[in-house]
Amino acid sequence: MTQHTFTLTVSCADQSGIIAAVTGCIAETGGNILNLAQHTAVDIGMFFCRVSFAGTEGFTEARFREAFDKIAAKFSMDWQFFDNDRKKKVAVLVSKTSHCLYEILLKHADGELDCEIPVIISNHPDLAHIATSFHIPFFQVDVKKGKHEYERDLEEILSRYDIELVVLARYMQVMSAEFCERWDTKVINIHHGFLPAFKGAKPYHQAWQKGVKLIGATGHFATADLDQGPIIYQDVITVADTCSVDEFIRMGKDVERTVIVEAVRRYLSHSIFLWQGRTFVIE
Amino acid sequence: MTQHTFTLTVSCADQSGIIAAVTGCIAETGGNILNLAQHTAVDIGMFFCRVSFAGTEGFTEARFREAFDKIAAKFSMDWQFFDNDRKKKVAVLVSKTSHCLYEILLKHADGELDCEIPVIISNHPDLAHIATSFHIPFFQVDVKKGKHEYERDLEEILSRYDIELVVLARYMQVMSAEFCERWDTKVINIHHGFLPAFKGAKPYHQAWQKGVKLIGATGHFATADLDQGPIIYQDVITVADTCSVDEFIRMGKDVERTVIVEAVRRYLSHSIFLWQGRTFVIE
Amino acid sequence: MTQHTFTLTVSCADQSGIIAAVTGCIAETGGNILNLAQHTAVDIGMFFCRVSFAGTEGFTEARFREAFDKIAAKFSMDWQFFDNDRKKKVAVLVSKTSHCLYEILLKHADGELDCEIPVIISNHPDLAHIATSFHIPFFQVDVKKGKHEYERDLEEILSRYDIELVVLARYMQVMSAEFCERWDTKVINIHHGFLPAFKGAKPYHQAWQKGVKLIGATGHFATADLDQGPIIYQDVITVADTCSVDEFIRMGKDVERTVIVEAVRRYLSHSIFLWQGRTFVIE
Amino acid sequence: MTQHTFTLTVSCADQSGIIAAVTGCIAETGGNILNLAQHTAVDIGMFFCRVSFAGTEGFTEARFREAFDKIAAKFSMDWQFFDNDRKKKVAVLVSKTSHCLYEILLKHADGELDCEIPVIISNHPDLAHIATSFHIPFFQVDVKKGKHEYERDLEEILSRYDIELVVLARYMQVMSAEFCERWDTKVINIHHGFLPAFKGAKPYHQAWQKGVKLIGATGHFATADLDQGPIIYQDVITVADTCSVDEFIRMGKDVERTVIVEAVRRYLSHSIFLWQGRTFVIE
Repeated sequence: MTQHTFTLTVSCADQSGIIAAVTGCIAETGGNILNLAQHTAVDIGMFFCRVSFAGTEGFTEARFREAFDKIAAKFSMDWQFFDNDRKKKVAVLVSKTSHCLYEILLKHADGELDCEIPVIISNHPDLAHIATSFHIPFFQVDVKKGKHEYERDLEEILSRYDIELVVLARYMQVMSAEFCERWDTKVINIHHGFLPAFKGAKPYHQAWQKGVKLIGATGHFATADLDQGPIIYQDVITVADTCSVDEFIRMGKDVERTVIVEAVRRYLSHSIFLWQGRTFVIE
Repeated sequence: MTQHTFTLTVSCADQSGIIAAVTGCIAETGGNILNLAQHTAVDIGMFFCRVSFAGTEGFTEARFREAFDKIAAKFSMDWQFFDNDRKKKVAVLVSKTSHCLYEILLKHADGELDCEIPVIISNHPDLAHIATSFHIPFFQVDVKKGKHEYERDLEEILSRYDIELVVLARYMQVMSAEFCERWDTKVINIHHGFLPAFKGAKPYHQAWQKGVKLIGATGHFATADLDQGPIIYQDVITVADTCSVDEFIRMGKDVERTVIVEAVRRYLSHSIFLWQGRTFVIE
Repeated sequence: MTQHTFTLTVSCADQSGIIAAVTGCIAETGGNILNLAQHTAVDIGMFFCRVSFAGTEGFTEARFREAFDKIAAKFSMDWQFFDNDRKKKVAVLVSKTSHCLYEILLKHADGELDCEIPVIISNHPDLAHIATSFHIPFFQVDVKKGKHEYERDLEEILSRYDIELVVLARYMQVMSAEFCERWDTKVINIHHGFLPAFKGAKPYHQAWQKGVKLIGATGHFATADLDQGPIIYQDVITVADTCSVDEFIRMGKDVERTVIVEAVRRYLSHSIFLWQGRTFVIE
Repeated sequence: MTQHTFTLTVSCADQSGIIAAVTGCIAETGGNILNLAQHTAVDIGMFFCRVSFAGTEGFTEARFREAFDKIAAKFSMDWQFFDNDRKKKVAVLVSKTSHCLYEILLKHADGELDCEIPVIISNHPDLAHIATSFHIPFFQVDVKKGKHEYERDLEEILSRYDIELVVLARYMQVMSAEFCERWDTKVINIHHGFLPAFKGAKPYHQAWQKGVKLIGATGHFATADLDQGPIIYQDVITVADTCSVDEFIRMGKDVERTVIVEAVRRYLSHSIFLWQGRTFVIE
């Protein structure tokens, strides 16, 4: 029999007795801790914690919320409670390149991304066949309508599928500031450069021009400031100066696909804490 | 005012309520948890935990030990308690190559190895000048006396300096089975190969002959079985097939020195748990 | 207009004047060197060289072969000449896991593997749909017939498609010694362990049991000695001791798929030189 | 008997027959090629080449230069000729942190940096004892005199020791534009950030603030534009969000020391080619 499990995330100013209070409350309401990850960021005096636990007989979400509310009030905590049986609904947005989409679908099929992917959306028809072969509805949106109009279409689709997270998997359209605000911390983008270096267009060309010896990719929350949102995950590969720009583009694909999947995975496991424009990912 | 801090390590069969019991006991005896790292090894049903905490007013080791003994008995725990003000005394044993010794001394001088290094011992005089420049007593032992005799000399020096951990920093003598047993899990060796591949002599030559594409080093506890003791830390570097054996030896030094220091650091931070001949390092 | 290009590989005992002789012959027969990679293995006194060149007007393979034969005789060279317009025909053999097959097909579709893949063969029906979606014929062979019988079926398929390289992409059958000999240096296998450690069955279980801190995969030529053939490419990833065997298996997939593709790429670019059971890969 | 060896570097617009002409000239003047590394940068149509060769009987630098001048003129080559018996004279400049200085001295002592280090210069007295223990003269310069005055003192020391390369090993003074121009491509600096991100002061603080997931270091030629000179070598390490700024600083030291040594090594092996503000390092 598989257990019914829950995840609790907590952030607050650092102070004495937090862990004992949190773990005590879980134990008293009938929870059995499976995993506890915690970090005190000494530079800013903040405490971040994520606890997974199984509900034993008698545990109910309502009772836990009532009990934990008191502790949260005492320590001035921000907290979130997740029922791990409820899978997040994720939409993937793509344009013409397939490597990030394939990676997400293959990892999802392999059980590595704990979510549902009920819809794939694109501004081009090119990747429809991939959606089809994975039996996922594919929608094409028409960006020529103008940003306002087309984003309304987009949101209608997202709404129809109860989407909770949008993944821009090499989607070659900049979202409007309004969209980014409405979907704040709910849109993950992959940038094909090691941010904060090489923002904006053609990052591999920029990197080649500068003669850097490593190229990378960055998974981050999309914000109104292009390529400036909180970084979730990054990785790089070493490149030789014998590589052309085309080789950068080719080699970079492997980093991009790894990074987008790892960024989404961290989101789905409730590992990302936000503080003043940067993340603390606690695993 | 710096705090007086302590570290508690616990291992036992996995069961419900362990974390709440441990953290509750620390809170009740006047400890304030700073950091908690915990892992449940599902393959073997074991629980491992390391907690650092500050003692607030009224906390005493004796009271804590008395209180924790009851919890430990209830859960059949193996546990250890460390006063972080008590630095471990570490002896470094060397032969003729200096890179591991330098690395240990430079990292120690930089405050990265939380221990005392009261003595350096060698079977050769070559590195005495390094000990001198770091103001550490240097002893030369005479292995020609025979293993039994010379190890008695060695142990006398270790005993004189109250040594609690012996680090073999490219020390080119095999310790006797008796020595290894007396110093069980208290001798850390660096092997210049990626164990369990390339045991024994000339691992870089073996690696070159086999044509492997990465070479590595392994920090492990020394046991009577040569190069077979529990692995603490490993790292590798990519090598090109254009490298000669001499280049392997040269390049390998950087891995060896990193690995020996990281292995010792994990030991000093009480991060190493042992189970049936392998380690679980929980950071 | 794209150029007609050729690749020449040379290996011989090291001696004076080889490079000048090779490059001179290419120039004299109307070749224009695009890329020259060369290595002298000082440990064994061997010289390895790969030259790519474009044929200018008047260059013919026959004239080059005639001219180069004299040089080869003078220096006792082993040499091979490849017309880069002639793509190798590669068969992929699989069983039930799809990650290596997908990687090969996606990289091939992306133009990164310079070959044809006219056929996919399996001892199970599970992955037929992938072959279909990439429009490649899929054959199922029946291993229950007995090794001798079934390998005859296999070879018939290979022969029908003029196969020149067989890639075992997590194909879970050991080839017979006879097959390995007939296809000597023409079968590339992926082993999910860092060879020479963890040969044979269940390498991830072996690695977990031993408590290693990195896990890897090895692309190698299949030989009659299981998992002992010349290593072409290897890579590893760092694992934490908090990983279960199942996580090793899951994480290892990313290494396996990278390694198999890189091993095949090195083969197709004529970068692999063999010497007494090990490779020298010169890029 | 060790051979007398030479290194030739060539760069020019890409065109047919370069390699044959270069290797032919070496052969005809009595040189025996040991190693040839070459790269055609297709993005810019440039050819770069480095050849090491032994002079056999009859080879003289004068005769080679005379012969090669004609080839260089024909292909409009930039070229340099180095006698490998002539060691470059390198000055190391430091301030208060020792890790880069130690690394350079230890690698030099180990025979890995093919140069002489006749002098160490600092604007602080703190590291004089290290110079002493390696038996190298140590000079303290007085920056309070004003940049112009003090740089004159500095150049006097450099001149007295016939210095050909200046290595800024965490030297915490910005050189004047005049100094940078006079010593153009003869000053190598280590920046403790992954350039072009995190230029200027306190790069680790900047990196922490931004929440990047990797930190790095960059070895580059010093130019009048601070931290903007051509990049020679870079490396990064993965950092967890549980790291404080102080841990970034501590962990970054290992990258910095590796990067500065690798940058100097590439310089000494004549592997660095410059083109419009970026390097092509051909190994």
